[in-house]
Amino acid sequence: MSSTFGTLYRVSTFGESHGKAVGAIVDGCPANVELCEEDIQPQLTRRRPGQSEMTTPRDEADRVTILSGCEAGKTLGTPIGLMVNNRDQRPGDYQEMSQVPRPSHADFTYQHKYGNRAASGGGRSSARETIGRVAAGAIAEKWLRENFSTEIVAWVSSVGEVDAPDLSLEGLGRNEVDKNLIRCPDERSAEKMMEAVADARDQQDSVGGVLTCVARGIPVGLGEPVFERLEAKLAQAMLSIPATKGFEIGSGFAGSRMRGSAHNDPFEMKADGRLGTVTNYSGGVQGGISNGEPLVFRIAFKPPATIGQAQQTSTFQGEKTVLEAKGRHDPCVVPRAVPIVETMTAMTLMDFVLCQSYRA
Amino acid sequence: MSSTFGTLYRVSTFGESHGKAVGAIVDGCPANVELCEEDIQPQLTRRRPGQSEMTTPRDEADRVTILSGCEAGKTLGTPIGLMVNNRDQRPGDYQEMSQVPRPSHADFTYQHKYGNRAASGGGRSSARETIGRVAAGAIAEKWLRENFSTEIVAWVSSVGEVDAPDLSLEGLGRNEVDKNLIRCPDERSAEKMMEAVADARDQQDSVGGVLTCVARGIPVGLGEPVFERLEAKLAQAMLSIPATKGFEIGSGFAGSRMRGSAHNDPFEMKADGRLGTVTNYSGGVQGGISNGEPLVFRIAFKPPATIGQAQQTSTFQGEKTVLEAKGRHDPCVVPRAVPIVETMTAMTLMDFVLCQSYRA
Amino acid sequence: MSSTFGTLYRVSTFGESHGKAVGAIVDGCPANVELCEEDIQPQLTRRRPGQSEMTTPRDEADRVTILSGCEAGKTLGTPIGLMVNNRDQRPGDYQEMSQVPRPSHADFTYQHKYGNRAASGGGRSSARETIGRVAAGAIAEKWLRENFSTEIVAWVSSVGEVDAPDLSLEGLGRNEVDKNLIRCPDERSAEKMMEAVADARDQQDSVGGVLTCVARGIPVGLGEPVFERLEAKLAQAMLSIPATKGFEIGSGFAGSRMRGSAHNDPFEMKADGRLGTVTNYSGGVQGGISNGEPLVFRIAFKPPATIGQAQQTSTFQGEKTVLEAKGRHDPCVVPRAVPIVETMTAMTLMDFVLCQSYRA
Amino acid sequence: MSSTFGTLYRVSTFGESHGKAVGAIVDGCPANVELCEEDIQPQLTRRRPGQSEMTTPRDEADRVTILSGCEAGKTLGTPIGLMVNNRDQRPGDYQEMSQVPRPSHADFTYQHKYGNRAASGGGRSSARETIGRVAAGAIAEKWLRENFSTEIVAWVSSVGEVDAPDLSLEGLGRNEVDKNLIRCPDERSAEKMMEAVADARDQQDSVGGVLTCVARGIPVGLGEPVFERLEAKLAQAMLSIPATKGFEIGSGFAGSRMRGSAHNDPFEMKADGRLGTVTNYSGGVQGGISNGEPLVFRIAFKPPATIGQAQQTSTFQGEKTVLEAKGRHDPCVVPRAVPIVETMTAMTLMDFVLCQSYRA
Repeated sequence: MSSTFGTLYRVSTFGESHGKAVGAIVDGCPANVELCEEDIQPQLTRRRPGQSEMTTPRDEADRVTILSGCEAGKTLGTPIGLMVNNRDQRPGDYQEMSQVPRPSHADFTYQHKYGNRAASGGGRSSARETIGRVAAGAIAEKWLRENFSTEIVAWVSSVGEVDAPDLSLEGLGRNEVDKNLIRCPDERSAEKMMEAVADARDQQDSVGGVLTCVARGIPVGLGEPVFERLEAKLAQAMLSIPATKGFEIGSGFAGSRMRGSAHNDPFEMKADGRLGTVTNYSGGVQGGISNGEPLVFRIAFKPPATIGQAQQTSTFQGEKTVLEAKGRHDPCVVPRAVPIVETMTAMTLMDFVLCQSYRA
Repeated sequence: MSSTFGTLYRVSTFGESHGKAVGAIVDGCPANVELCEEDIQPQLTRRRPGQSEMTTPRDEADRVTILSGCEAGKTLGTPIGLMVNNRDQRPGDYQEMSQVPRPSHADFTYQHKYGNRAASGGGRSSARETIGRVAAGAIAEKWLRENFSTEIVAWVSSVGEVDAPDLSLEGLGRNEVDKNLIRCPDERSAEKMMEAVADARDQQDSVGGVLTCVARGIPVGLGEPVFERLEAKLAQAMLSIPATKGFEIGSGFAGSRMRGSAHNDPFEMKADGRLGTVTNYSGGVQGGISNGEPLVFRIAFKPPATIGQAQQTSTFQGEKTVLEAKGRHDPCVVPRAVPIVETMTAMTLMDFVLCQSYRA
Repeated sequence: MSSTFGTLYRVSTFGESHGKAVGAIVDGCPANVELCEEDIQPQLTRRRPGQSEMTTPRDEADRVTILSGCEAGKTLGTPIGLMVNNRDQRPGDYQEMSQVPRPSHADFTYQHKYGNRAASGGGRSSARETIGRVAAGAIAEKWLRENFSTEIVAWVSSVGEVDAPDLSLEGLGRNEVDKNLIRCPDERSAEKMMEAVADARDQQDSVGGVLTCVARGIPVGLGEPVFERLEAKLAQAMLSIPATKGFEIGSGFAGSRMRGSAHNDPFEMKADGRLGTVTNYSGGVQGGISNGEPLVFRIAFKPPATIGQAQQTSTFQGEKTVLEAKGRHDPCVVPRAVPIVETMTAMTLMDFVLCQSYRA
Repeated sequence: MSSTFGTLYRVSTFGESHGKAVGAIVDGCPANVELCEEDIQPQLTRRRPGQSEMTTPRDEADRVTILSGCEAGKTLGTPIGLMVNNRDQRPGDYQEMSQVPRPSHADFTYQHKYGNRAASGGGRSSARETIGRVAAGAIAEKWLRENFSTEIVAWVSSVGEVDAPDLSLEGLGRNEVDKNLIRCPDERSAEKMMEAVADARDQQDSVGGVLTCVARGIPVGLGEPVFERLEAKLAQAMLSIPATKGFEIGSGFAGSRMRGSAHNDPFEMKADGRLGTVTNYSGGVQGGISNGEPLVFRIAFKPPATIGQAQQTSTFQGEKTVLEAKGRHDPCVVPRAVPIVETMTAMTLMDFVLCQSYRA
């Protein structure tokens, strides 16, 4: 259980779906950052379920409390304890756990690895685990914004077979992302995506999607070659989010089909006197280090494993059985993944800034 | 410069393209593993340039020396020092460095981050850096093979626009991969790939490609949720390899287009009495933990940045200029990346096995 | 702020003296350990102030809550969140901080390092910070006891000029330690120690002391040479406790005065069929690795810096001034340090056991 | 085998007494530090055996080679590979290992932990392992000296029963330390110490001693509470040196006998306009953070375990036997420990400077 991320901006999370609380400790945040719960809450609120018909109807307040590390509205430089209570914990409700490992869930692997697992709700593999990260990353976002005017914006660029056009050069902000429930800034695509989600839901099925994330205002020089290249740590950060199956930066998989003469990013002097690149197939990194161009990367999410349809599968003992999930389930997680991707990005970048700073 | 990878099987690499030597220290290898240079050399030899017309003609012996950690043919449990001399180092040849940062190379970012950079050959961002990893990972491969019969096989699954059919279920071995120079086990695709490389070379251009890697014989339970999920650390490991732009596991980006009812992997009792999955869209991991199915993942490599064609670009000072690379260059790196991907996989898996072992 | 300790049993603490709560996350505790708050509370209760006239009269319940990582009375293998509320936090009471850095306190260094500091009570350098460690270490104690019958017992071996006789071979238990308020199992010494404390208190002064700690039932083989030798990590663990000034293991400083012929610990076959040593000047470690003999070490604590006497000192601006601490203060911290030393020892040992286990 | 030390200035060492080489990788050294072998060699030369009749007569050149990380006399910011060849390695000389674990050596514990051990010379527990540290720390010394005028000076303050007067306030330099073979700057004490060593040697015995180390020119603010307090990491660094048994900082164990009114260090404005302390019982740290006063600490070394005298002990199988060491042995290691202590101090401090720098 490695629940700590980062070298100097170190985030350690805790919490299952049905314990008393979830949260995080942020160790290494500089002192004298103005910080209160209201700085953290918006991303938690964007993350929480029950915002719309697009997502699961379960409603939780998900209010964060700062337990330590701040005084008089400023950080002390000491560990920041962050906690969100679980509202619908049900102590005592420890009925015999299901004999059927849910397909493509973590039941089988957790049971095998730990010889135990949380009785319900996915335990530590639940999306609820991400609350601690989002809270911790929201602090990093604030710090990056205040120190480097860094803007990190993610959006839904595909749902199922519906692809939005490439918007990575548009300079999008979160307002544009949040103007519809599916969090795709291209309205026509958004409508089709919402139809695709509605279709899946009506068929008691689920559907996957892709997020694009752009980070602008990135200092040159971030990334620690060789094993902690910027893209390598971003890839780790993104693939640590539940339900992710792929990561690509810049040209990504499509770039593997290109010739070098087309793919290379030539340099030119920019209007602001900065040497930059004409194109950005590199996605903002060269040799594992940020080059000052926007970071552009994409993350693939699988369709949620919990579906209402009956599934042919087996018990832990290997007996054939049919599994039917009860209740209503989230047919598409990608809109809620937007703040998770943004805050994981922020946490990754801030750590690199702190590691890099002694060279400045 | 974070040149260390792993928690209990810890690999630290050193070396530039033109210093005296490159190599690694492996800390945490168990004692009493039979080990000599001949166990390590084959993957180094597969990695080295100059093997064929497909790759750069520069020939280096790349012979590894074990400096410490072994005695009488067995590991002591102490750090294993590994070294490969650089043959064509040219001390004293420190001419003024080029005023032109090569497009999509690390010249610009290294210069900015470090205020210095190796005079030639790419320094630490050079492919030569990978020698230390390959040597260190070759030891992990041996250990996994001897303890779990683990087989890790990577091959070239696309070059430019040429795609080989999916071979991930074929149970391929390295012999089949190595039977042609491009390292694609499908002979018809291999021929077309080699044509694509020859075309690019003839036009003083380069071409990218994709590797597929399959690891069979994986113990159930590997991976440390949440930030060190198996796929997250694999993604970091792969994206730490020079020239990589993307990583996907199991269904990957294509999986994001699927419905849950099709994507879920139902369980069934296997002939060997093990509970397994009918399909493997998960790619061998669920909830960040290996489930005993083969790991299947793909890595995208961009076309090499060094090309013979003239390129319009700018000097560090922003003056427009034309850059032409001298000499012959490697038009396609993916065949040489095969042993790098395999050994990075081994190193990642072995670390998880050691971390997991106290639970066994 | 490095508030994380350990490689596989990883403890991260948070909390100041006057925030909402203090606590810890324990990452890496094996699953299926029977665990509830009652297992942790006793060491917290032994640690808390206000137990007697020997210590500060401030009374706090210091009740621990397990926030996560347990279900149905067993650990899940996931991070265990531990929290103790601060009862007398006074939000809003942020008066201007003192212009006088208290001598031998952390006011000056925290202010300099962070450009900020907690308004009162010592913030993160307060003894209250140790609550998280004690809670986290109490779990390690339980695990070691259940798996190896490990017993860790610390006691007060000197207070000021009063030295108890060497009791390290006596096989003492905690009952014997706790039978008096000063936690010295030698009754005659205990009485004199309590007099020394009373004297200091009457003179509005404070007094230091030494703790001896013995850990029995230690598996052979713990410790990771070279930088994480068992004694090196124990030394770090002990010197991370507030007010400590020294650490010695086995013969310690006295051993430096000896000849090798007297100091060497010869081997002999023990009655239980184990090869052991006749003497134990090594203190249970050889070459940085436990040899199966009891660990024996001593920790020096300075006299508490907060005293009622007037002190000549300077303001932050360098103006001479006289400082007088208000209220009543703890004249001697060593009795309360007993559970802190024991739990830090447990945490250190358990981490080594987990790191070592793959070799077993 | 945790052979890596540090967070941002990361030193990984390798090598046994009788392999091909010993050395280290330094990862995280800033770029553009002027560096060549001659900067490193002096401390290696001070460390090496065979300098005098005080130490073992075995002579080895111990010439360091920089394998990577430097070009044109400057660091590149990339890992610095450092290597010293072992001259008298005897490959093939793998006779059956002794059946008698040497008392107070690492034979028994290494054999038990690893199920294997180096055939001779102590392997990884040998003093020869310290070569890598000394080389890596010599770079840190240079960097600290050039950036902060930091001076780190250690000397022998006691040998056996011979104590030198306290010289920690004298502003000693290395020239004064090196003017005699025992490395005690007090000439009268030095003579007695050398007699004590000669006596021990004549009786085929050995003798322990204590080193005092003072580091001046320390930036305020170093140290990362709570688990990486400056004194805690120094304690770890020192207790990681072979043959150490104790560490104390400032008043140390003697301070535990004092009253707070005497022990507290009041503040005063210094002549240079810096707020400092009148006394320095704290030894340069308060709350785990450097306060700008000199660091003063002492390290206890046991008498070397290898002695010529016959010793009653047992074989691994428990049979009583008499062990007599052949050849000549070092009767006192403390003079050679001087550069080891200094360079471990430098490595610890430099890491804290880099970790702290982002706050500056």
